[in-house]
Amino acid sequence: MRSLDRLISNLKRLPGIGPKQAERISLHLLRRPPEETRELVASLEEARRNIRFCRECHYLSEEPLCDICRDGAREPHTICVVEQPGDLVAVEKSRSYRGLYHVLHGTLSPLEGVAPKDIRAESLLERLKRSDGRIREVVLAMDPDMEGEATALYLAQQLRSYPVKVTKIARGIPLGADLDYLDEGTLTSAFEGRREF
Amino acid sequence: MRSLDRLISNLKRLPGIGPKQAERISLHLLRRPPEETRELVASLEEARRNIRFCRECHYLSEEPLCDICRDGAREPHTICVVEQPGDLVAVEKSRSYRGLYHVLHGTLSPLEGVAPKDIRAESLLERLKRSDGRIREVVLAMDPDMEGEATALYLAQQLRSYPVKVTKIARGIPLGADLDYLDEGTLTSAFEGRREF
Repeated sequence: MRSLDRLISNLKRLPGIGPKQAERISLHLLRRPPEETRELVASLEEARRNIRFCRECHYLSEEPLCDICRDGAREPHTICVVEQPGDLVAVEKSRSYRGLYHVLHGTLSPLEGVAPKDIRAESLLERLKRSDGRIREVVLAMDPDMEGEATALYLAQQLRSYPVKVTKIARGIPLGADLDYLDEGTLTSAFEGRREF
Repeated sequence: MRSLDRLISNLKRLPGIGPKQAERISLHLLRRPPEETRELVASLEEARRNIRFCRECHYLSEEPLCDICRDGAREPHTICVVEQPGDLVAVEKSRSYRGLYHVLHGTLSPLEGVAPKDIRAESLLERLKRSDGRIREVVLAMDPDMEGEATALYLAQQLRSYPVKVTKIARGIPLGADLDYLDEGTLTSAFEGRREF
């Protein structure tokens, strides 16, 4: 069935969905009342239509300014820089940070041809200029991989000419980890970052 | 964001998708070019519009008769009865069966009020009447749970008045299983169904 194959192949492109699950979801939808597919389609279209990027931090938003940038209760002197909207969501869920954000929408990757102009790096510097000294700290919260490190390094260099403290979130052993299963890099970071007890 | 929450809650209803993955899929779609969402939506709508049930066996089909019922190379004397289209797909993938099918679209469940009239049971009997002796065997391939057993028992009783052999697929130890991890029911079936070596 051509239309079933087409649906399965589109579902397979979604993150974390393999061929088997794509098939199961397709058959599930065909078995359920058509209103369920209509509601799913309507919500997909609505999300694409209504959700834009915040003009300040580039997080997702239905308004020109996102919920966080509009929230007067946030600590206004700190910006946490993340790679993707999903990273912001994860930090928010941890309730470990109460400041503002900046979403880069990518990481530098010379191999894949991603240059500073392809991510929202320039606009971070512009925000700092506009802020007139209000921003006192920029927290870099990139993923701990090669692209994330390269991006953090680049931003740290660019930020040198601004009167802000630049910090990076700590690396170390994750909660609940087995020391004997951890990779060497993580253990090295954990020892380098050790603190007095 | 209301429209993001709506999309996430619709994705969570799909089989095997938890809250975390629903969020990841939503953010992924918003990050990708809009054409990808359009293509996904188009394929969902096309599948719902074009895919109907085969008038003979009730499997999914874009034509009045499904690919299998139209296929002259199938063994025409046997009907394998399954609960859902997904079960048919699984049997086809195993390449262990070359006959025809009958998809019930459900199982009997007195507790949930599913009676014989709510599944495609009557139409199996009508197929046998119409077949004029062409069908010689009906293979029952229900899931090995209470509803599946009840459905198989009901069908076997109904089929008594027809000149067909009624069989049931074997229960036993699945390939690659650890005997000491198997439940008692499966082991009992495996012993009851033992064959000469």
